[in-house]
Amino acid sequence: MLKLSAHPSGRHFLQIPGPTNVPDRVLRAMDYPTIDHRGPEFGELGRSVLAGMKKIFKTDSHVVIYPASGTGAWEAALVNTLSGNDLVLMAETGHFATLWKKMAESLGLRVEFMPGDWRRAADPEAVEARLRKDAGHEIKAVCIVHNETATGVTSDIRAVREAIDRAGHPALLLVDTISSLGSIDYRHDEWGVDVTVSGSQKGLMLPPGLSFNAVSAKALAASEKSTLRCSYWDWHAMIASNATGYFPYTPATNLLYGLHEAITMLLDEGLETVFARHDRHAEATRRAVRAWGLEILCADPARYSSSLTAVLMPEGHGADAFRKVVLDRFNMSLGQGLTKVKDKVFRIGHLGDINDLTLCGTLSGVEMGLGLAGVPHNAGGVAAAMAYLAENSAVRSR
Amino acid sequence: MLKLSAHPSGRHFLQIPGPTNVPDRVLRAMDYPTIDHRGPEFGELGRSVLAGMKKIFKTDSHVVIYPASGTGAWEAALVNTLSGNDLVLMAETGHFATLWKKMAESLGLRVEFMPGDWRRAADPEAVEARLRKDAGHEIKAVCIVHNETATGVTSDIRAVREAIDRAGHPALLLVDTISSLGSIDYRHDEWGVDVTVSGSQKGLMLPPGLSFNAVSAKALAASEKSTLRCSYWDWHAMIASNATGYFPYTPATNLLYGLHEAITMLLDEGLETVFARHDRHAEATRRAVRAWGLEILCADPARYSSSLTAVLMPEGHGADAFRKVVLDRFNMSLGQGLTKVKDKVFRIGHLGDINDLTLCGTLSGVEMGLGLAGVPHNAGGVAAAMAYLAENSAVRSR
Amino acid sequence: MLKLSAHPSGRHFLQIPGPTNVPDRVLRAMDYPTIDHRGPEFGELGRSVLAGMKKIFKTDSHVVIYPASGTGAWEAALVNTLSGNDLVLMAETGHFATLWKKMAESLGLRVEFMPGDWRRAADPEAVEARLRKDAGHEIKAVCIVHNETATGVTSDIRAVREAIDRAGHPALLLVDTISSLGSIDYRHDEWGVDVTVSGSQKGLMLPPGLSFNAVSAKALAASEKSTLRCSYWDWHAMIASNATGYFPYTPATNLLYGLHEAITMLLDEGLETVFARHDRHAEATRRAVRAWGLEILCADPARYSSSLTAVLMPEGHGADAFRKVVLDRFNMSLGQGLTKVKDKVFRIGHLGDINDLTLCGTLSGVEMGLGLAGVPHNAGGVAAAMAYLAENSAVRSR
Amino acid sequence: MLKLSAHPSGRHFLQIPGPTNVPDRVLRAMDYPTIDHRGPEFGELGRSVLAGMKKIFKTDSHVVIYPASGTGAWEAALVNTLSGNDLVLMAETGHFATLWKKMAESLGLRVEFMPGDWRRAADPEAVEARLRKDAGHEIKAVCIVHNETATGVTSDIRAVREAIDRAGHPALLLVDTISSLGSIDYRHDEWGVDVTVSGSQKGLMLPPGLSFNAVSAKALAASEKSTLRCSYWDWHAMIASNATGYFPYTPATNLLYGLHEAITMLLDEGLETVFARHDRHAEATRRAVRAWGLEILCADPARYSSSLTAVLMPEGHGADAFRKVVLDRFNMSLGQGLTKVKDKVFRIGHLGDINDLTLCGTLSGVEMGLGLAGVPHNAGGVAAAMAYLAENSAVRSR
Repeated sequence: MLKLSAHPSGRHFLQIPGPTNVPDRVLRAMDYPTIDHRGPEFGELGRSVLAGMKKIFKTDSHVVIYPASGTGAWEAALVNTLSGNDLVLMAETGHFATLWKKMAESLGLRVEFMPGDWRRAADPEAVEARLRKDAGHEIKAVCIVHNETATGVTSDIRAVREAIDRAGHPALLLVDTISSLGSIDYRHDEWGVDVTVSGSQKGLMLPPGLSFNAVSAKALAASEKSTLRCSYWDWHAMIASNATGYFPYTPATNLLYGLHEAITMLLDEGLETVFARHDRHAEATRRAVRAWGLEILCADPARYSSSLTAVLMPEGHGADAFRKVVLDRFNMSLGQGLTKVKDKVFRIGHLGDINDLTLCGTLSGVEMGLGLAGVPHNAGGVAAAMAYLAENSAVRSR
Repeated sequence: MLKLSAHPSGRHFLQIPGPTNVPDRVLRAMDYPTIDHRGPEFGELGRSVLAGMKKIFKTDSHVVIYPASGTGAWEAALVNTLSGNDLVLMAETGHFATLWKKMAESLGLRVEFMPGDWRRAADPEAVEARLRKDAGHEIKAVCIVHNETATGVTSDIRAVREAIDRAGHPALLLVDTISSLGSIDYRHDEWGVDVTVSGSQKGLMLPPGLSFNAVSAKALAASEKSTLRCSYWDWHAMIASNATGYFPYTPATNLLYGLHEAITMLLDEGLETVFARHDRHAEATRRAVRAWGLEILCADPARYSSSLTAVLMPEGHGADAFRKVVLDRFNMSLGQGLTKVKDKVFRIGHLGDINDLTLCGTLSGVEMGLGLAGVPHNAGGVAAAMAYLAENSAVRSR
Repeated sequence: MLKLSAHPSGRHFLQIPGPTNVPDRVLRAMDYPTIDHRGPEFGELGRSVLAGMKKIFKTDSHVVIYPASGTGAWEAALVNTLSGNDLVLMAETGHFATLWKKMAESLGLRVEFMPGDWRRAADPEAVEARLRKDAGHEIKAVCIVHNETATGVTSDIRAVREAIDRAGHPALLLVDTISSLGSIDYRHDEWGVDVTVSGSQKGLMLPPGLSFNAVSAKALAASEKSTLRCSYWDWHAMIASNATGYFPYTPATNLLYGLHEAITMLLDEGLETVFARHDRHAEATRRAVRAWGLEILCADPARYSSSLTAVLMPEGHGADAFRKVVLDRFNMSLGQGLTKVKDKVFRIGHLGDINDLTLCGTLSGVEMGLGLAGVPHNAGGVAAAMAYLAENSAVRSR
Repeated sequence: MLKLSAHPSGRHFLQIPGPTNVPDRVLRAMDYPTIDHRGPEFGELGRSVLAGMKKIFKTDSHVVIYPASGTGAWEAALVNTLSGNDLVLMAETGHFATLWKKMAESLGLRVEFMPGDWRRAADPEAVEARLRKDAGHEIKAVCIVHNETATGVTSDIRAVREAIDRAGHPALLLVDTISSLGSIDYRHDEWGVDVTVSGSQKGLMLPPGLSFNAVSAKALAASEKSTLRCSYWDWHAMIASNATGYFPYTPATNLLYGLHEAITMLLDEGLETVFARHDRHAEATRRAVRAWGLEILCADPARYSSSLTAVLMPEGHGADAFRKVVLDRFNMSLGQGLTKVKDKVFRIGHLGDINDLTLCGTLSGVEMGLGLAGVPHNAGGVAAAMAYLAENSAVRSR
């Protein structure tokens, strides 16, 4: 067997902002023998996970499940709704918004990329202003990353929706929730989103390998006219088969077992409770960061992410060397800085299946690692987090 | 927990031609906690499975692994190598060849579909004749399904290669090995295949969710000029990242754990031994079918599939009613007849992780089911299979 | 990792009369992280399995669960109820009755062993006759093996109870149900049994490691006066702790998870359905044996075991050489002949988590193995079993 | 399925001094299908775990493995070596020493219990003095608990051996290593121990259900003359069967799979490295306790336990109320105070499969819990532990 950990003892702390720690219940569910994807039991499984995902997306419309990672669901959102040379408006919130933009271009779309400094959310007013100028409705879609995994900044999707409405513009609203769904409040229907993109390996607490589109009626109508070629991602074949719980091609059965278990866990806990839990862990983390005297990458406290926190390194200190110390000595993976912030930030994932003590262990690893890597900081981060957590703790009951 | 079997006791017999029965070792491997896909252990895993898959494909060229099911790998083969309006030559071997053809059309390709009666392999002579007529080299690719999962007919890929060569035609050769790889001898390099498509859930004994392209240098060169848009399926980004064992977007980590284990099992057993095992189980199955007095769908004994056997129902008897009897009473899933042969054939999968006694149980279920469903047949199918198996049995040693 | 199978592919057929094939659901349940055996969740687990086991034993009295294999529960039954030099009456039904007798002697008890030929059940009339002669009530206990795992003969416990009652004798009735509980009808209370001994690895479909005593009020009263020393097996400490769902020393937590799942499965199927299923598989097996022209060890058709069938080898043919052929070639374990019938019989286990097709696979392995080992026999055993199974098959519904 | 955690998210922190957190590798190993305990693969497994356990015990003599929890191995040590009314010398180190003493009495032995205050180790000088007085060699065995799980005090077994030798007394030396084996250095042969008792669920990182005796030649000789009755625990039958890797009665196969994996992990890490790891985590824990201003139960720094730390509550504050706060709010189980120290101490387990960050999480839970429970203490415990851990951290490499 391949040795999957270089560390001799204890559980790995997987504190990147996804993939996240998969709960034992989900791992065990995935491990059940594969069944016939055309048999009666499968239909029941299919109907159940499709219905469950609607609750997670807060939609009464369609949810499509792909045997693919999140990148595939990005592509699906674009190719189902748009046509070659269409103009789309995107906001440069960070690395992942940039990747989505490059994908759109590689698919033959024209992209107008509203610039950003990677420390702030997408700007609804800028969206409104740009759309107002687009009298000819050349812009076919506005694409926003809800929670920028590279920066720990959450954009206000409701405000973007209102901006589009105020501009009276017919563009579709496409939103990436890969690192927010199941962690941060999200409302596909209420916020008038046309396509929501998501993936399995973050707030949904699954391994990577499943991704999702939630699709509004308007998006579905748009897909009738799209001329971008697609087959694997085609919504229509999916939705037709899904009506009875089946899929047009072989689905990732064992990951669907895991999805069923994960949905059950999230709904049992209650989505609002899940969101509050993430808020609380995020605040505890920020208090630790501030106590260390380090700077949070997100420059707008109103847009702090509840699923991850990106931390700026002091000038002259590389984040990657620091992360290596933490991995080698404390068996913890932290997220790296990507492209524009490469080696300048590290990211702490605090989403998915975690609890207070795992977070304290995580922050302890950061605090000890800062010291060992010679990064100037103040002690007391863990203490600050503990003070907050204790003050805001609650008895858990069934 | 969702109840995944309506049957009160005993293991389900999953004897469809895929997904196949996943070995316990593979299920357990998949169930290990997800690791950081950018960490050092992942690189080792990635390099190991990529190297292993080359051995399985018998290639020294590139292998690309997608977090997707086999349908995605079909699309990848087409969109990486071809351009809009290109003409491709395909052979109608059955349902899956037809689906691939429809996909090609939906992607904007023109397809010339050499007709077939779903009972015979692709005809190398017809390929040669057609290519000889294509003096202008309008045909850009020849696409063949190696083993037609819908019919149990295996095409002779080496002969197709020779036909193309005899015609002196530069068309690419694209081959689907979804239900043959790891079950029936296949040689990407030696047979001069340009793109081989495969999936995880058949001979590789994994759950669905991974698929593959093996890519020749010629195919890779062709991909430089392809104008079909693709991002998720793009080989170049994949091959660049794969060099160090990583992936350009989040891979399906836990399925890769399973892949590592499955490759180990196949190579430990020895590919030639694996193929001989499949040949032997296929022959035992055909002897049972003949003893029952039923007809094998494959009309050419030289092209019998070693991974599945499709059986024609006697006139006036529906295959689906029969399959339902088998499922309801004997807890076994058999493959259904698809489109043109819907309700006219049933398919027995005898590929992947099976052994003699599982096959005998399988054939017993068919024999008992034929009786209970009132299908005219002779007894003695299981006895005929046992006679062959016993005569050709071997002591297994470590 | 240790290689646990020398066979390169397919699932092992574990058709010994225990340990039996553990269902995937039970294996997965066992694999959950260990919890605090003094915490609140454990109490719930403990109460649940204790209540469930009462239903399985059909008793309203006490059930004691030991972290031990069945041999331990034998010892527990004796040392809790008896005193040094006490006389107990046992019936020589086979190897396991003989082992129990030897254990009793090694513990300092005197045993009167009613002789048997290993082909018949314990004789209630002989019990009655012997007890009638025991006017002084020197005999303190009658010990009977309900289902002799070495021979495939089931004794009539109700009749033994009636024999004791007719004799008006106060002896305790101790019964071993290790290979019958959960497979063959058994009623601790209704049949007036004082101590029932059982284990986890047969009809309960668990790995070995748990064993049981069901204890009548009379047995509990007797234990107050017992002078055999015991601590680990002591009922009183167990029953006192069990009242709240806990144990006096560390229990085998993970096996208890499995027990919880197994009880759920048995009660969901329904005990009477479980017994009928075993009866049917046993009859199919016997029809195969007769068709082969071989002799069933059990000489009394009224006492055939529904959990296993022991088969006599023809003169001059060793059972162990035959079993080796079956293991080496067909990846199936059959039970060996023990002591008095060593090499003379082989045993087919058809209990626990099996179904029709597994049984057909099993019988196919026997039939092919007989041929390969050169054992004179007629063909047609599997065919005879199939005929019976098909005729008596039923649609399974949830 | 039974809900095994009342906590909605994150992994339970099982920081009692056993059962300990079972590594994923061990859980997965246990989950493999049960094999025939009389088949060839089992023999290989049996020989491997028996050989491995000799390395763990550091003995070339016999190791016996029981399908039982640790209490059973206590009983085995006594009943194999002693006879009714024999006098044994035991040392009152705490709750578990007291339980062992009661067991000895219940088995009919006479026990002389050298009194202790539950804060100190067994006193070698007292042992020597008592044995010197026993000119008639009435004392047949000296029984010592190596690591008192109830108090966190480790006795010096080498010194006890030397004390016996200095007294020139022939008594056997029986030692309980249930909470030390695999965590704290232990040398059965070098220290001249006659019977070492251990269990699976602590340093061996397995679920409960297996226990052990390591047996010297002298102990084996003594067992020939023992008159205490035993059958399940009988060494002779075990050792005879073990010679070929088998067991005289059904072993707990799946736990043995886990044992095989656990032994591999311990030997791969290296026993001396394992012990150093435990020493380091214990010292970090004690530094936290001192920083909180709380008192460590163990009054002799030379005898601190490396596997657990028992902490005294300040006067007027109950440990159980505090532990409940920690469990309810932070999803962590701590060990309770037992009998004499009930509600007066809590115990932190830091043995088995843990690492620095798990320990920091653990200590954070204690520090926050102290606050929430209103227990007077100073802040800074976690900080003190982190300072020590960081200073003494090492890069882990394969």
